Amino acid sequence: MLAGMAEHFQEDSVAAVGVRIDAEHPHGMIFDPHQPQLRVTDLGAIRGDGIFETMYCFGGEIRKLDAHLRRLARSAGICELPLPPAESWRAAVDLGIEEFSTRGTLPEHLTIKLVVTRGVEGEPAADDPAFAGTAWVLLTPAPEALLASRGEPIAVTLLDRGHDSTAAERAPWLLLGAKTLSYAVNMAALRHAKQHGFDDVIFRTSDGQVLEGPTSTVLLVHRGAEGSPPRLSTPERESGILPGTTQGAIFAAAERAGWELGYGPLTPEELHAADHVFLASSVRLVSPVSRIDDVEMPVDHDLTAELTALLAEDLPVGRPLDD
Amino acid sequence: MLAGMAEHFQEDSVAAVGVRIDAEHPHGMIFDPHQPQLRVTDLGAIRGDGIFETMYCFGGEIRKLDAHLRRLARSAGICELPLPPAESWRAAVDLGIEEFSTRGTLPEHLTIKLVVTRGVEGEPAADDPAFAGTAWVLLTPAPEALLASRGEPIAVTLLDRGHDSTAAERAPWLLLGAKTLSYAVNMAALRHAKQHGFDDVIFRTSDGQVLEGPTSTVLLVHRGAEGSPPRLSTPERESGILPGTTQGAIFAAAERAGWELGYGPLTPEELHAADHVFLASSVRLVSPVSRIDDVEMPVDHDLTAELTALLAEDLPVGRPLDD
Repeated sequence: MLAGMAEHFQEDSVAAVGVRIDAEHPHGMIFDPHQPQLRVTDLGAIRGDGIFETMYCFGGEIRKLDAHLRRLARSAGICELPLPPAESWRAAVDLGIEEFSTRGTLPEHLTIKLVVTRGVEGEPAADDPAFAGTAWVLLTPAPEALLASRGEPIAVTLLDRGHDSTAAERAPWLLLGAKTLSYAVNMAALRHAKQHGFDDVIFRTSDGQVLEGPTSTVLLVHRGAEGSPPRLSTPERESGILPGTTQGAIFAAAERAGWELGYGPLTPEELHAADHVFLASSVRLVSPVSRIDDVEMPVDHDLTAELTALLAEDLPVGRPLDD
Repeated sequence: MLAGMAEHFQEDSVAAVGVRIDAEHPHGMIFDPHQPQLRVTDLGAIRGDGIFETMYCFGGEIRKLDAHLRRLARSAGICELPLPPAESWRAAVDLGIEEFSTRGTLPEHLTIKLVVTRGVEGEPAADDPAFAGTAWVLLTPAPEALLASRGEPIAVTLLDRGHDSTAAERAPWLLLGAKTLSYAVNMAALRHAKQHGFDDVIFRTSDGQVLEGPTSTVLLVHRGAEGSPPRLSTPERESGILPGTTQGAIFAAAERAGWELGYGPLTPEELHAADHVFLASSVRLVSPVSRIDDVEMPVDHDLTAELTALLAEDLPVGRPLDD
């Protein structure tokens, strides 16, 4: 699938729009992402020293913007990174969408990436520390292959993330829970999975707690007894995972719908024992897991549709999702 | 010290030289590192998905070039990264040094960085896979503050690297032992150390084995009994550390000088019990450790000079080090 996505992205990337944020352009400045923008001494490029968010924009409406900006600020706090204010990000994203509209080519499905790095090595500190890093927004039409994969069953492999479940608490310098640019391990785990016939990965700790996917959050569904609501659960954050913005949106809607919610340490055995397992992410939405290593998992397309509908409740002005 | 280095680097960086390597320029093409070179979709910049080496060049002679190219190839293997051939790197480095010479400004001490990333997201594969990534060499005058810190005693703190000593073997997707661009944790550990009054870090595994520094290798010296040679030891590589090129060069010379050599799992207690502890790296060379957390360690400037002299033996044409 990755190869197909890459091909499609190539076609689409012709239309990508970049918006830079700096002290002179606190509300953003359009750039062409096909032209070089970063110096080879940028600490994002040579140290993976920066953070990011990937958002989804449907029909010009950005999904969960506040949740993404909150998580960006949380990552910046963990990494002690300078961060432009929320109003700068909002203005830059608006400018990017406006640019598409002006060109008359606003795609229905946009992926919007927010990135900030620690800036250029050895550059003097900016007058305003909020703009000391290198910050940009990249708006790209969402790859067709990715949209088409929504709701499709996936086979996943459980991979050891190396650390145990207390590492996040005892060793803050490991930056667990921050969405940093140092993603080489996540990419390597995905390559390992594809090479072994899987579509995706669920990480676990070395002491056997379920964590998250390299680019997703794990959701478990237990069906209730006749007449009682289903129970939705997800691993607790204390084990050093990202707070999932999609998981958060689904949980909020599920609670309103009367579902039971649960957070907690989850073991691989509890994954297998769930009625259904899903991976949730901002652009791919919810993917039902049909196999965890050699354990087959039941897939229920109605339930996938139900979760997707819960997620759609979060849409501004109640606009329906098209999937 | 970092602030001072940054200031100096700023002055020096005026004179930095960049050399790009690609399919059209397999022997390198000079670029100005003050101009943007990388796209915001480069996987090095947005995923930390790439590898690097930092070499030292003294008086126009590159130190341990073969060892660095071997380690670069080893990192590429672990990360399954496309890598230009050694002859391209050699030619590009030569071109960069020549550029300094042509300008009449070849610095006595140069830091030479070799970097290759997985390339631009969604770009079609290059005809020659060796040039599918984004590759460059950056030559920068070595910061005066860094040169001045050579041989100076340092206080270090032992920090948990999160994983245990068997992680490298059981979970190759963690890329332990590869020198990747995903260095955010190394940078965070150094910040943590400075904030707590230390100069540097020695990482340990969660099960108590000594690993390496964020940018250095750990060396232990045990003085022999009267008339017997000293013993030099370093943590074994199986625990998931980088093979140190400086450690390798010192070990080779020490062996010729009749020292005893040792590799093995080392505990923090063994660190404390050593007569002397050093951190070794390519540009800073050897730094004697004067304190490990609250344990004072004896510093012997003659021994520091002796180790530096051993390292100097590795210099081509026996050129003496100037420190």
